[in-house]
Amino acid sequence: MTTEETARTPSFSGAFEELDETIHQKVRLGIMSTLIALKEADFKLLKETLGLSDGNLSTHLTLLEERGYIHIQKSFRGRKPHTSVTPTDTGRVAFDRYVSALERIIKQS
Amino acid sequence: MTTEETARTPSFSGAFEELDETIHQKVRLGIMSTLIALKEADFKLLKETLGLSDGNLSTHLTLLEERGYIHIQKSFRGRKPHTSVTPTDTGRVAFDRYVSALERIIKQS
Repeated sequence: MTTEETARTPSFSGAFEELDETIHQKVRLGIMSTLIALKEADFKLLKETLGLSDGNLSTHLTLLEERGYIHIQKSFRGRKPHTSVTPTDTGRVAFDRYVSALERIIKQS
Repeated sequence: MTTEETARTPSFSGAFEELDETIHQKVRLGIMSTLIALKEADFKLLKETLGLSDGNLSTHLTLLEERGYIHIQKSFRGRKPHTSVTPTDTGRVAFDRYVSALERIIKQS
């Protein structure tokens, strides 16, 4: 295929631009996918499911919270601290858009 | 959902581990998707479709070639150098596996 034919793939260029880097990063994709699927997950579950250290998971959760994609609620269960994470509406919309852009990239042509 | 229920999502953990970082990186995902869809693309087409600098595209093409995912053929068209890029069988298999792992991650639950 030559350069002149680039115009045949306009949806791809758009999808490529739209691919949300906040979600695309592997760990954050894992977090968001888990939260969308389960509706809620605690810190320990995310850590074990994704095989992450406390620090690594915390870093990515903080970034997702700053972007408004997740809500983090800290509480106590008896004497033990408990961290519950849920996706926000903004996060759900962003995830849907991400999946849509990804499908357009992968299934282009 | 609590930690005890982690066992309900075994396919997710596996898919997460399998997600090929060589392909997942955004630029390389763009390159591989384009090559799989078009079967062949020249340097200029990839550069313009993905909106990359020569240096950035070259870096990612070199890495994909080192991994055996693509074949790069340099030639001349008249006096102009021409670089043709095609996916290898290894690259096609890796791409299929990547897409499969991605689908399992995104559609988990």
